[in-house]
Amino acid sequence: MTRYENLATLLAERIEQGLYRHGEKLPSVRNLSQEHGVSISTVQQAYQVLENLQLITPQPRSGYFVAPRKAKPPVPAISRPVQRPVDVTQWDEVLTLLDARSDKEMLNFGGGAPDISQPTLKPLWREMARLVQHNQCDILSYDALQGRRELREQISRLMVDGGTVVDPEDIVITNGCHGALSIALLSVCKPGDIVAVESPSYYGTMQLLRGFGIKVMEIPTDPETGISIEALELALEQWPIKGVILVPSCSNPQGSIMPDARKKAILALAQRHDIVIFEDDIYGELVTDYPRPRTIKSFDIDGRVLLCSSFTKSVAPGLRVGWIVPGRYRDRVLHMKYAAIGSTVPTNQLAMAAFIRDGHYHRHIRRMRQFYQQHLETYTCWIRQYFPCGICVTRPKGGYMLWVELPEGVDMICVSRQLCRLKIQTAPGSLFSASGKYRNCLRINCALPLTERYREAIAKLGEAIHIAMEES
Amino acid sequence: MTRYENLATLLAERIEQGLYRHGEKLPSVRNLSQEHGVSISTVQQAYQVLENLQLITPQPRSGYFVAPRKAKPPVPAISRPVQRPVDVTQWDEVLTLLDARSDKEMLNFGGGAPDISQPTLKPLWREMARLVQHNQCDILSYDALQGRRELREQISRLMVDGGTVVDPEDIVITNGCHGALSIALLSVCKPGDIVAVESPSYYGTMQLLRGFGIKVMEIPTDPETGISIEALELALEQWPIKGVILVPSCSNPQGSIMPDARKKAILALAQRHDIVIFEDDIYGELVTDYPRPRTIKSFDIDGRVLLCSSFTKSVAPGLRVGWIVPGRYRDRVLHMKYAAIGSTVPTNQLAMAAFIRDGHYHRHIRRMRQFYQQHLETYTCWIRQYFPCGICVTRPKGGYMLWVELPEGVDMICVSRQLCRLKIQTAPGSLFSASGKYRNCLRINCALPLTERYREAIAKLGEAIHIAMEES
Repeated sequence: MTRYENLATLLAERIEQGLYRHGEKLPSVRNLSQEHGVSISTVQQAYQVLENLQLITPQPRSGYFVAPRKAKPPVPAISRPVQRPVDVTQWDEVLTLLDARSDKEMLNFGGGAPDISQPTLKPLWREMARLVQHNQCDILSYDALQGRRELREQISRLMVDGGTVVDPEDIVITNGCHGALSIALLSVCKPGDIVAVESPSYYGTMQLLRGFGIKVMEIPTDPETGISIEALELALEQWPIKGVILVPSCSNPQGSIMPDARKKAILALAQRHDIVIFEDDIYGELVTDYPRPRTIKSFDIDGRVLLCSSFTKSVAPGLRVGWIVPGRYRDRVLHMKYAAIGSTVPTNQLAMAAFIRDGHYHRHIRRMRQFYQQHLETYTCWIRQYFPCGICVTRPKGGYMLWVELPEGVDMICVSRQLCRLKIQTAPGSLFSASGKYRNCLRINCALPLTERYREAIAKLGEAIHIAMEES
Repeated sequence: MTRYENLATLLAERIEQGLYRHGEKLPSVRNLSQEHGVSISTVQQAYQVLENLQLITPQPRSGYFVAPRKAKPPVPAISRPVQRPVDVTQWDEVLTLLDARSDKEMLNFGGGAPDISQPTLKPLWREMARLVQHNQCDILSYDALQGRRELREQISRLMVDGGTVVDPEDIVITNGCHGALSIALLSVCKPGDIVAVESPSYYGTMQLLRGFGIKVMEIPTDPETGISIEALELALEQWPIKGVILVPSCSNPQGSIMPDARKKAILALAQRHDIVIFEDDIYGELVTDYPRPRTIKSFDIDGRVLLCSSFTKSVAPGLRVGWIVPGRYRDRVLHMKYAAIGSTVPTNQLAMAAFIRDGHYHRHIRRMRQFYQQHLETYTCWIRQYFPCGICVTRPKGGYMLWVELPEGVDMICVSRQLCRLKIQTAPGSLFSASGKYRNCLRINCALPLTERYREAIAKLGEAIHIAMEES
């Protein structure tokens, strides 16, 4: 972050904590500049950021004042999905969302892409350029089935942060986290099996289950603490469920973080019912608090957790570098990797291995955590400002997604279609349910820039929702 | 090819055609040099190549003479696999072969890697370096689900050479041909289905079928003209076969090419029995004769052929760029691509698109055709020289694989294990059969260099086979 961004974040926190009260006059530009040892223009830029966020208002010839604020919208309640296994629907809607990726004019609030414009990624370029110049043989040859050893060693080091101690031999490189989940599921399940998921749950995972003919049992989930263990237990008693897909460290779309006690409880439950846990840790490194939460895998003693992750959200989607820690399913996972894709691209694996080894990854991830935190705050402010009253908004503790719940009766699929014409893409909530629930919800990608253009888009989105609410 | 290689090939052809007879004296170095307008040392180098191939023998103070030659070993007979659907076995043996890729000291005659040391690949590097420097956003972003449009346009142009006219919208980019076949099979078949294959057939395809729980019906196949249509018809009448996997343009491992009439006949058969054809065209561009053979897809009128291919053999395996032309299964293939891997790596797609667009691909492929033809000839000579009598060897019309059939009773799995200790890796024939047939066969990768080290390895291989034959 630049100096002025740092200062703006600090001031925003003080306002949030009530150290500066609503209506109170803020320190003068000159005073702040002296207090923090920064230039006048840095303070002016910081105040400009806060003004854009509508946290402060300027008054001619008097300075800046803390703005009066709407109350924070409440967090959505625990979900109540259908309590039986269902087939996933909505592929056409997901395809529309995926196609929007190629439309360069579209403001894509619906997609899951991270920010890839940070200077902390530069060493990754340098490494790629070096590989192209000096390691042509490595780059052009078949990769080892398990993936490059150099990279597996680095991943094994990184995973210690989440409490997961794993040998590089027990890591299998995949084509992104999506490819990891796909291989994990193919290794354990067959068509007709039932798998439990959090509800709402990432549409990519849902469509993956649909592709393989697996039925989905949606489990009530709390937007702050994750899946309901009680509801899962009830489901396990009633249905022959094969496994459960969990995103315990910053879920998608709600950003929930499962407390350690609940992680242990769910593992004990899995053991009692002899089911498999597919742990999706793709956002785990983007949890705001440091140190990052422990993985369920870190408590796993009998190898029933298949941990899936990737650098798609933490570094860049185009790398397509993910991995599985397959536990007791290692042999089967290796075979299914061979069946599903053969081997993976070596270049990006080698580049990532060097990026981590030389300390650039940690520098980058520290920056991105702050970056996304600021983005989440700003987008939350914009939503508070432009969206009608009577909505609920999540308060994720990491990642860069917001989940907005509108009153029942508002149909976000219709609203999304209208917004598409204005070149604004959103992800209607129904994509996050196997049975088409959450039509009145939407997920917003806050990794998008904080410029005027995007603020206006959020304003238009708010307006469309206003109209839809009045009509409903 | 260098001048001396050209000259050596020319002379070898003349010997092969009987223009120089066995025992006849060859022109003097000086005469040849004048006749072909090349230097004395070029002629000397060419003669050295022919001497290494044991096509000619030097006689002190008299010059070079055409060497007496063993008779060409016959081509193997049409195969006779088990005539019922079976489950694929031998995964552990395939895994051993795959693991050998990472052993840099191993002379890997068992793998399928092409030669990647040619200077005609240089423009591919330049393009990659350019992308890393100037297209960082493209490289780091999610790819379109279908793959980069630029590349699909170039592939659609290339495919005209095989008579296949296809719109870029009807091409789906995959992670290599292996990934293409995998998605094609997942799109059409479910566990328990039966799929017919040529016999012998590539072990990767077999293990893919095993992974997805698909049973295999091996069909008798001729090493020159491909699968027996009569035998396939008989099988279709007896079993509920879902589809057939064919490699009609230079099969793996035997290098057969199916004549156009048979391609049409098999398509008609597929229509009558309403089955799907999975056409694997990975070696199609490496057929020696120009223009390359037509694809079955080029005769397809009702979209029942799913053509799968890649640049793995024609350019480089590390690219992992393949594609499907899915015909009537387009929607299902797109969904299964999303389920199986999400999206593919953009960098290599963009680099390949530019490589083709700027004419470098055609230059490279012309070179590789000649290169592999020469390698096949030389390796055939070496085998003739070092292997015992009583063997059969294929005469592939493209690609770079030789299939050697030894007398019944020789167990190539045992021989392979012994050779591994000498750092020589071979592919025992049983890997190419679902039911472990062809234990007395092996496949040899002739893309490997023509140096003394590799000649010695073939000699050791021959010696091991000699001993095994005596013991059997």
